[in-house]
Amino acid sequence: MLEYGIDAIVDLALSEDIGTGDITTNSTVPAYATASGTFRAKSPGVLSGLEATAAVFQRVDSSVRFQSQLGNGDAFEPGDVLAIVHGPARSVLTAERVALNFLQRLSGVATATARYVEAVRGTNARIIDTRKTTPGMRLLEKAAIRHGGGHNHRVGLSDGILIKDNHLAAIGSDSIRRSIEAAREAAPHTLKVEVEVTSLDQLDEAMAAGADVIMLDNMAPETMTKAVQRVNGRALLEASGGITFESVREVADTGVDLISVGALTHSAPAVDISLQFEINRGD
Amino acid sequence: MLEYGIDAIVDLALSEDIGTGDITTNSTVPAYATASGTFRAKSPGVLSGLEATAAVFQRVDSSVRFQSQLGNGDAFEPGDVLAIVHGPARSVLTAERVALNFLQRLSGVATATARYVEAVRGTNARIIDTRKTTPGMRLLEKAAIRHGGGHNHRVGLSDGILIKDNHLAAIGSDSIRRSIEAAREAAPHTLKVEVEVTSLDQLDEAMAAGADVIMLDNMAPETMTKAVQRVNGRALLEASGGITFESVREVADTGVDLISVGALTHSAPAVDISLQFEINRGD
Amino acid sequence: MLEYGIDAIVDLALSEDIGTGDITTNSTVPAYATASGTFRAKSPGVLSGLEATAAVFQRVDSSVRFQSQLGNGDAFEPGDVLAIVHGPARSVLTAERVALNFLQRLSGVATATARYVEAVRGTNARIIDTRKTTPGMRLLEKAAIRHGGGHNHRVGLSDGILIKDNHLAAIGSDSIRRSIEAAREAAPHTLKVEVEVTSLDQLDEAMAAGADVIMLDNMAPETMTKAVQRVNGRALLEASGGITFESVREVADTGVDLISVGALTHSAPAVDISLQFEINRGD
Amino acid sequence: MLEYGIDAIVDLALSEDIGTGDITTNSTVPAYATASGTFRAKSPGVLSGLEATAAVFQRVDSSVRFQSQLGNGDAFEPGDVLAIVHGPARSVLTAERVALNFLQRLSGVATATARYVEAVRGTNARIIDTRKTTPGMRLLEKAAIRHGGGHNHRVGLSDGILIKDNHLAAIGSDSIRRSIEAAREAAPHTLKVEVEVTSLDQLDEAMAAGADVIMLDNMAPETMTKAVQRVNGRALLEASGGITFESVREVADTGVDLISVGALTHSAPAVDISLQFEINRGD
Amino acid sequence: MLEYGIDAIVDLALSEDIGTGDITTNSTVPAYATASGTFRAKSPGVLSGLEATAAVFQRVDSSVRFQSQLGNGDAFEPGDVLAIVHGPARSVLTAERVALNFLQRLSGVATATARYVEAVRGTNARIIDTRKTTPGMRLLEKAAIRHGGGHNHRVGLSDGILIKDNHLAAIGSDSIRRSIEAAREAAPHTLKVEVEVTSLDQLDEAMAAGADVIMLDNMAPETMTKAVQRVNGRALLEASGGITFESVREVADTGVDLISVGALTHSAPAVDISLQFEINRGD
Amino acid sequence: MLEYGIDAIVDLALSEDIGTGDITTNSTVPAYATASGTFRAKSPGVLSGLEATAAVFQRVDSSVRFQSQLGNGDAFEPGDVLAIVHGPARSVLTAERVALNFLQRLSGVATATARYVEAVRGTNARIIDTRKTTPGMRLLEKAAIRHGGGHNHRVGLSDGILIKDNHLAAIGSDSIRRSIEAAREAAPHTLKVEVEVTSLDQLDEAMAAGADVIMLDNMAPETMTKAVQRVNGRALLEASGGITFESVREVADTGVDLISVGALTHSAPAVDISLQFEINRGD
Repeated sequence: MLEYGIDAIVDLALSEDIGTGDITTNSTVPAYATASGTFRAKSPGVLSGLEATAAVFQRVDSSVRFQSQLGNGDAFEPGDVLAIVHGPARSVLTAERVALNFLQRLSGVATATARYVEAVRGTNARIIDTRKTTPGMRLLEKAAIRHGGGHNHRVGLSDGILIKDNHLAAIGSDSIRRSIEAAREAAPHTLKVEVEVTSLDQLDEAMAAGADVIMLDNMAPETMTKAVQRVNGRALLEASGGITFESVREVADTGVDLISVGALTHSAPAVDISLQFEINRGD
Repeated sequence: MLEYGIDAIVDLALSEDIGTGDITTNSTVPAYATASGTFRAKSPGVLSGLEATAAVFQRVDSSVRFQSQLGNGDAFEPGDVLAIVHGPARSVLTAERVALNFLQRLSGVATATARYVEAVRGTNARIIDTRKTTPGMRLLEKAAIRHGGGHNHRVGLSDGILIKDNHLAAIGSDSIRRSIEAAREAAPHTLKVEVEVTSLDQLDEAMAAGADVIMLDNMAPETMTKAVQRVNGRALLEASGGITFESVREVADTGVDLISVGALTHSAPAVDISLQFEINRGD
Repeated sequence: MLEYGIDAIVDLALSEDIGTGDITTNSTVPAYATASGTFRAKSPGVLSGLEATAAVFQRVDSSVRFQSQLGNGDAFEPGDVLAIVHGPARSVLTAERVALNFLQRLSGVATATARYVEAVRGTNARIIDTRKTTPGMRLLEKAAIRHGGGHNHRVGLSDGILIKDNHLAAIGSDSIRRSIEAAREAAPHTLKVEVEVTSLDQLDEAMAAGADVIMLDNMAPETMTKAVQRVNGRALLEASGGITFESVREVADTGVDLISVGALTHSAPAVDISLQFEINRGD
Repeated sequence: MLEYGIDAIVDLALSEDIGTGDITTNSTVPAYATASGTFRAKSPGVLSGLEATAAVFQRVDSSVRFQSQLGNGDAFEPGDVLAIVHGPARSVLTAERVALNFLQRLSGVATATARYVEAVRGTNARIIDTRKTTPGMRLLEKAAIRHGGGHNHRVGLSDGILIKDNHLAAIGSDSIRRSIEAAREAAPHTLKVEVEVTSLDQLDEAMAAGADVIMLDNMAPETMTKAVQRVNGRALLEASGGITFESVREVADTGVDLISVGALTHSAPAVDISLQFEINRGD
Repeated sequence: MLEYGIDAIVDLALSEDIGTGDITTNSTVPAYATASGTFRAKSPGVLSGLEATAAVFQRVDSSVRFQSQLGNGDAFEPGDVLAIVHGPARSVLTAERVALNFLQRLSGVATATARYVEAVRGTNARIIDTRKTTPGMRLLEKAAIRHGGGHNHRVGLSDGILIKDNHLAAIGSDSIRRSIEAAREAAPHTLKVEVEVTSLDQLDEAMAAGADVIMLDNMAPETMTKAVQRVNGRALLEASGGITFESVREVADTGVDLISVGALTHSAPAVDISLQFEINRGD
Repeated sequence: MLEYGIDAIVDLALSEDIGTGDITTNSTVPAYATASGTFRAKSPGVLSGLEATAAVFQRVDSSVRFQSQLGNGDAFEPGDVLAIVHGPARSVLTAERVALNFLQRLSGVATATARYVEAVRGTNARIIDTRKTTPGMRLLEKAAIRHGGGHNHRVGLSDGILIKDNHLAAIGSDSIRRSIEAAREAAPHTLKVEVEVTSLDQLDEAMAAGADVIMLDNMAPETMTKAVQRVNGRALLEASGGITFESVREVADTGVDLISVGALTHSAPAVDISLQFEINRGD
């Protein structure tokens, strides 16, 4: 069912790559030839993007068979076979590049996430994503975060309340209390209210106003430790801002509940995966 | 006019982020408030993505004014103002994240490209892209490559002929000659014929068959030097496969005409750009 | 900005009504004639749907001017002028029916909501909607609920967690506790967890498992009163199931926090609004 | 084939309900669980909407099997099984609400129509619909009218000519004759010409001008009786305006051919239909 | 307003021509250059397609100004200026070919129609079109028919009833009477019933069954003359099948009301119209 | 896979023809009836459009079976059976007209092309198409050209460089050399550079600047002969402008490589193909 929501980006990716047709393939590969392809890891990582990869082949030619050998979220080593594909040679060659573009990129996000999750193992902290995702890839990257062992922040602006500095500036005086009240009054009762704070004083205001979640924006670890003590479990605490792989453990050790990392989606390098074919010319 | 082709990805990005509406903003920011925002570089780089960024604001609210201070392709230093935006506070806050996602990512591609271009300065080689682009972002990333001083390979499968190993395998014996002839017979006369070779023997075959462009796949620099000598300007030579920032100069020094680098689009980190607002509550 | 999300239903409604063109209007009304129309209430109610109504005219002809005289959420009496429209006679006549279909129907939802809200005035209870909305009209009907003084439940399946009997059946033994834990583990931390219960025993289980919101499904008022006492503010309580205008006050008097009423959207009659034109033939 | 025209509204309804995914179901229901559901009437009525209901399940998951037990247009009593559905539990639970929204609403239209049709049994009059339909649901509601035993007026502005007061005002003096001539000259010969009149004098004008169908707008029954006698079968007569279930028989007894009732589509309450599941966890 | 229905084909035509961008224009024409273009007839004809032509330029660049010098339906001679266009040189050059493709083709349809209309001048017969139109161009070609002085048959399958031989075969014995009754019972009362006959016997059956319009399929002129006498104005008669420019007058002289000609849309040659530019490089 | 790119025009064609449903068929043909249809040529020609024709039936009803008897590019004589179709009678009758519109028109293009190709047999010249195609039909008409034995020019503006008079005017002095350099600098290296010239002097300039292809615009045959001699194989030469069936052989005899003919797509008459059904009423 995930495919329901990924039609648009899969179609867009195919459309921009195929254009009016794969001239090279159509002129050199006989219509009757078949091909068998093997997706093989060339570096270690965590798999993600199988649905999109399958959808790419399916959309190009519904007679192509795509079979994963590992599941989303599984770790792999160089040389591991991740999936195989079989079908008319023209179809699989035409779809090859777009399929790899999805699989390499999404596995890149899952792999980066898994590194961060491993780094905070044993602490209370969840590694979560942000809205700093690739345009058009939001749903797929959110899934990749989960495949890497992370958790999701809200998907977008309509399924979570997050009051930030600009909202506070817009509502005027006594802004933390008033903005929390305004959000709670207007929003569905199914949503928690999260507010961003930059100091322990603001943290106190947020607690007094009954915030469900409090984002600690660019705070030093020692300040975060104090925040954790002060809140003492009465609200969730999210560390945010400039957290790197090098600093994430120290942040987690402060006792925060959530650590959001934009780099998981905006700067994760693609994982190297090859797709090698055997062509059967059918002679 | 570029906007003609980028509607789909801009709409998709907004749709996935806004969902059914920005609950936080709509409940905390008065409808009459206005906001002025400043895009400011936090690290050095080369600008790209202004059209998409402008289109994001325009699509959310056509009364928002977006004004760039630099042009696509311009270099910037930390602290430089890149653009300003002004309009209804609700609209600009709702659009903020998606706008930044485009601008940071595309400037990331331009910035990476500029580094490679600088690395080969003084040689004959063009830095070119590949089809290893982000799904949905092909056109915008191709433009970012140009903004960084690079050149484009074909956009997709229909505007260039590139005969690769799998095509050769599919066409059978005497494959280089026969595939070049087949492509030339079938394709519009406006397209050159490029073929991928892995050895100097194949290079000779490709030359004999009249290839216009020859891709040297994963060749050692010394082999490429021989290829350049052997071809002596009668065809364009493209170096491809595993070329990194560290190795690109050595490759360029072989005398090849084109160096294609997948990492420019599949693994370029986003550039850090901030967007700071002043909110005018209109009281 | 609301128009961003209502394009699809406005276009669909126009497309199905206009088909290949308004033959009657195009053959009888001169191209140069103009028309001024007055939207006037024929029965009392609460206004909703102004954005959609404006968008209908705008989409048919961007030169048409639509000006509301009251705002969404305003009450009106028979004879009140709600809005006026002016433009090329062909355009406004072609758009008339679809415009009225939106305005009458959405004002019908707001009007029904206002009656329920009035009925529970002075109690603690919010009147909320359900997902029993008209296909295609979700966003507009959710807004109409707010215009009538009600509040929204989640918009759809992705912006709220609501564990119902079928989910409990699917997860097996000790289902309330385990399903709440499963949802909390999987879902973004921004979402509260709501669970449906049918007895006070289940209510106890839900409280023990830390549910944020508990839906009391088809409970008798006296049982709900006990539930309110037992929970004592530690979770929100939603009354649901078969609540009518006749019974809603009794339900509210039990002290529940939320009362959801499907009839607000699935069975509210349209409000009677007329649109009368003066045609200026321009002679 | 009806599904050809209903894709858009089915997709829109699913999109607005599913959003980015059914979090509750996906976190509590195992992927391997199956569910069998029974659609059962809770009040009497006439069935409509089976194609749309089937399409909802099909679109969410093509492996779901939907089997109707009655046909569109069949009457049912409380307790009757209308249809059954079987498939992956996640899929059917995710699709449930949208499926019911279509079936309950369209059966509501068919049921209301059947009541009116029954009320005029034995007379010459057809019960017909209007363009006062739910945005996006035109085709489905038009079919529901037929399932209830009614007939359709034109689907939209392009498949019928109906000259109304505003058209007459726009064409100026001697308007009935001139507008009928203008329409006949401009329109395809396949369409009849219908004109709205408010008095017997206008009726005479319309007859003299050769109208094929004459709409009697808000006429008293005794006036309509005179109109029927005066026309004497030379044109079809449609009664229109403010006709209720209470007055429809008296109108039919005047001998008119057609009675149009806007309330059939703009204000018919949904029929109460339940969907109960058995979940098979597959242990 | 016509543009409402032509968006799809205009966008499709631009998309297939522009692809990912006009490389030639973008690399040779400065961004600041402007161009003024003159559409000039190179052969005589009747103009049609101005809305589509204008929409092409508008869609590419909303700052382009397109001004027609003649109206749709006006006759022109070689050398006549039909329209002028002015705007950014890149935009108008990119749009040029698609704009001409619409204008030349649609003027071709109008021109062919005008020849047939002229050929039957003085008779009772209307020249009408068929459904043998160019895929995607139905609405525009139907308008071109009117611009040429012809009239339209039904637009498509839903706005007219036309019972043909296959329908008769499907309904079985006594097919003409029974099919007319079935259509009249099922269809909106706004539609006339037309039936195709191939003999005078069938004509009698159709008259007896009350057909509103009768299509005389591939009848000899003398048979049509008899049909006209026999019907004597009680139904409309349409001549159809194999009618050419050479034979159309003889057919019209039989007294039939309507003559349908498929060649008007399926085989009309394009009219030769040139578009000459003056480029202002802005130096 | 061709169907990937033809969805849009097939859907558009069906949508404009079917509208809200085939009233005639649905009221006269029983739902259980089946039909077998035979596509038979009524004049000689070359077949094209089988994929689109098949897609039309498939889109209306996936249970319809369409089986071609000849392939695209095969020649046929009057009476030849081209394809057969079998399925539910309602479905095939509803799809009939659109299916024929594609097949007749595209076979018309292939047939016209084959005549031109035959006319230049024995010469060096390829018959090629232009961008003067039917809006929406670009891909299908390009394929029809190939089926007729012709070759394709570029598909659109993004897959070929063609510098025309207006581009030369825009770039200013020394325009041929400078525009070729500009295009080569900006365009992907996969594209050849073609330039339009009107004199032998311009030809010399183009050769000096290294043009890959040179279009001889409206040149007299004797001038073209000189051009061929002067170029002597160092570039491809395309004859263009006003070439008719009568003149094409003379042009080919000059020795040019390519002859582009706009009439192949803008003015080719449809081929006459009939579709005759046998209806099985299933009694």
